[in-house]
Amino acid sequence: MCSVKDIYTDYALYLNKKIAINGWLKNGRFQKKFVFIDLNDGTYVDDLQIVLKESEGIDLNALKDYLTIGTAVKVEGVLVATPQAKKPFELLASQVHILGNSSSDYPIQPKKHSKEFLRTVAHLRLRTNLFGVVFRLRNTVSMAIHHFFQQEGFINVHTPILTGSDGEGAGQLFQVTTLDLNKIPLNANKQIDYKQDFFGQPAYLTVTGQLEAEAFATAFSKVYTFSPTFRAENSHTQRHMSEFWMVEPEMAFYDLGQNIKMAQKMLQSVISYSLEKSRKDFEFLDQNVENGLIQRLTAIANLEKFPQITYEEAINLLLKSEVNFEQKPFYGGDLATEHEKYLTDTVFKAPVFVINWPKEIKAFYMKNNPDNKTVAAMDLLVPKVGELIGGSQREENLEVLQAKIKAFNISQQDLEWYLDLRRFGTCVHSGFGLGFERLMLYLTGLDNVRDVIAFPRVPNNISF
Amino acid sequence: MCSVKDIYTDYALYLNKKIAINGWLKNGRFQKKFVFIDLNDGTYVDDLQIVLKESEGIDLNALKDYLTIGTAVKVEGVLVATPQAKKPFELLASQVHILGNSSSDYPIQPKKHSKEFLRTVAHLRLRTNLFGVVFRLRNTVSMAIHHFFQQEGFINVHTPILTGSDGEGAGQLFQVTTLDLNKIPLNANKQIDYKQDFFGQPAYLTVTGQLEAEAFATAFSKVYTFSPTFRAENSHTQRHMSEFWMVEPEMAFYDLGQNIKMAQKMLQSVISYSLEKSRKDFEFLDQNVENGLIQRLTAIANLEKFPQITYEEAINLLLKSEVNFEQKPFYGGDLATEHEKYLTDTVFKAPVFVINWPKEIKAFYMKNNPDNKTVAAMDLLVPKVGELIGGSQREENLEVLQAKIKAFNISQQDLEWYLDLRRFGTCVHSGFGLGFERLMLYLTGLDNVRDVIAFPRVPNNISF
Repeated sequence: MCSVKDIYTDYALYLNKKIAINGWLKNGRFQKKFVFIDLNDGTYVDDLQIVLKESEGIDLNALKDYLTIGTAVKVEGVLVATPQAKKPFELLASQVHILGNSSSDYPIQPKKHSKEFLRTVAHLRLRTNLFGVVFRLRNTVSMAIHHFFQQEGFINVHTPILTGSDGEGAGQLFQVTTLDLNKIPLNANKQIDYKQDFFGQPAYLTVTGQLEAEAFATAFSKVYTFSPTFRAENSHTQRHMSEFWMVEPEMAFYDLGQNIKMAQKMLQSVISYSLEKSRKDFEFLDQNVENGLIQRLTAIANLEKFPQITYEEAINLLLKSEVNFEQKPFYGGDLATEHEKYLTDTVFKAPVFVINWPKEIKAFYMKNNPDNKTVAAMDLLVPKVGELIGGSQREENLEVLQAKIKAFNISQQDLEWYLDLRRFGTCVHSGFGLGFERLMLYLTGLDNVRDVIAFPRVPNNISF
Repeated sequence: MCSVKDIYTDYALYLNKKIAINGWLKNGRFQKKFVFIDLNDGTYVDDLQIVLKESEGIDLNALKDYLTIGTAVKVEGVLVATPQAKKPFELLASQVHILGNSSSDYPIQPKKHSKEFLRTVAHLRLRTNLFGVVFRLRNTVSMAIHHFFQQEGFINVHTPILTGSDGEGAGQLFQVTTLDLNKIPLNANKQIDYKQDFFGQPAYLTVTGQLEAEAFATAFSKVYTFSPTFRAENSHTQRHMSEFWMVEPEMAFYDLGQNIKMAQKMLQSVISYSLEKSRKDFEFLDQNVENGLIQRLTAIANLEKFPQITYEEAINLLLKSEVNFEQKPFYGGDLATEHEKYLTDTVFKAPVFVINWPKEIKAFYMKNNPDNKTVAAMDLLVPKVGELIGGSQREENLEVLQAKIKAFNISQQDLEWYLDLRRFGTCVHSGFGLGFERLMLYLTGLDNVRDVIAFPRVPNNISF
């Protein structure tokens, strides 16, 4: 048994040999004495052309009604050269076994379907050319992430998904419970009796593995997570979902500058690795989604140093610009999507690191700069996608961190273990978070995160 | 800057050169005119010995009080050969920078701590020799999983964690909500108004990614997940947790026999890869946790074919045995831990596949055998750990599957998308689930899953 990919990878190996292949019928062209079918098994972007001929003993009449789009078949035959045709080979069938039929109401027909429609049949869109490319690439990019960090001496760690506290102090948590919502138990004080809940206290889905990754980093030096994370935000943008995957490296003995270098190196390595491993899939995207995609990505992989500006410089650039922003930029405010877009698409035309953010709008664990107004944070903004990476040097000073926890009104008790990392052998350390689906947008040229994760979870939609 | 691993990997490269290294002080031996410290940065199982000498200009008096266990330091010096000593090299320090102190109440002292105690300081146990080994190995084994499946032409897929339905029909779900438990909203019928919940319906944490993996497999042929999964079971055994990682391959066009072969091949490949990549860490476990570990694993990696028996044969073996089981084995009942142990440790002294289980005690999606009593299921039982892998051929026939869903009293409406996979190009397919923490027990010789995941989640404990 061989795969479509096997054949395309080195067809000379199979030429004039008898082979067997399983797959699904993508298209068919019916003539009187022969039938062409395009077969695919999801391993490769191109289909395998199969020719069924009466003269080869194939009973076309008996098969005809079964050869519908989407049908699963097993075909045996000989791979023959077709020097006159567009493709250099086809499979001349000697046997065709219908494994599983597909009725005529199969939603994936050989015509253009809108992405919006395809989201409603997410379990079947995986079989289209576009989503075949997207999810094979998602695999390649995942491996590119592992490849990079392993090569750099990081270890992959699994931080918990269930948590008793709010990691970023940002709210927007999903609560996790085994209490019966029809009869929430109350204690003597008429409050919810969490002693009866599964963990004996309220529990949530994590918004970040960073705090636990810091515990790992202060034991193993360089670590990274690659895990699902959650936000109960009522966002309806093309860049937000309730469940998404994040890559979070954390490095002991690294300051902000080293952190930034690592982020750039990672992004460039992931691009180069993916372009090399999945060239054909990128070519499909270049032709069908974004003209010039490969050139754009190659250019970024070869950039010597991504531009870097301070938050203050960013605000000044926005204030000086002649664009009439819907949200007026001001010092102390977060950057809106239109601001990010202006910086990346108009000013720099490249990925840009924005560093030294006002401490009030960044998380409590970020290291205070000597000015005591800003923190040693960095966001990597990229054209089209906006914020792709967010990171910082972490506050390693026990007293300063305690004061910040207080200022942010976070319960110190939940974080005593985290403070221990500063009590026992504290050190300068840094890390960042990469939104994996946003990376996939950046690499595919697609514009909606719902199209780069198989079964997106967003407000009011938990289908499949 | 170099790591302890760099030096041990090829110390000739660094000999007589000036190097700088960061790490934490694991132990110290104080003499009058010199001090030995053992430094580690978590990259390697052995410490780097550093010698501080007054004669080299080190101010021992000034440093003395700071050189406590756990302190983070940066040391510069020359790596010198020590042909007379046990280890062939040491670092002769020229500069020592104290980065972060560690007070004397640091819980990880150079003495034997019980595993039970160390679980209470899970954020710091990562710095011990044992847990250093365990979590470096966890990284290696994770990469071994990816390495194997990528090589076999699988693609890694991310199936959703949040789900609207109960995948296995097994209950034991965590509910996920953004409703305020203090005031659950009711609709006109006085029932919980889930329209106001985040997803507009009840939502849960997944117990398996399998159903979605089947959608992937019927598009890409061979896929695997490597993801966290959840069970709200009130179990207090050494083999159960509420949050754990699972590897779930799913293969189109594979029957049960091919599925079994793939499972054996995967396990043997993971063992061989890990033994090769992490030899030193295995040697530590062989010396400190399980004598003969490496020999045991090597033997399993080299086994030609794991023994295979039917469930019926397993029950007969148990009934014939002279062991006085606490739970009497009977045809139709699940195998208890003591039963699994008897089969693997006493009868076969090897991993054993048990196939063809009664359909009533297995999940609805498993393929009915022609006897209509059993399903084409397989469990892989291994010595010490018990059930390591559970898998099956999936029911690919639409009508049979619909009947099974009904018989199991599961809502068909939630599974219409899953039935579509049988409506449109259905095919024989199979898959299995591997509990990653159980695999880690099997590979390390440890006996409690709480010691192979960093921050275990079990009933009444969600610390860190």
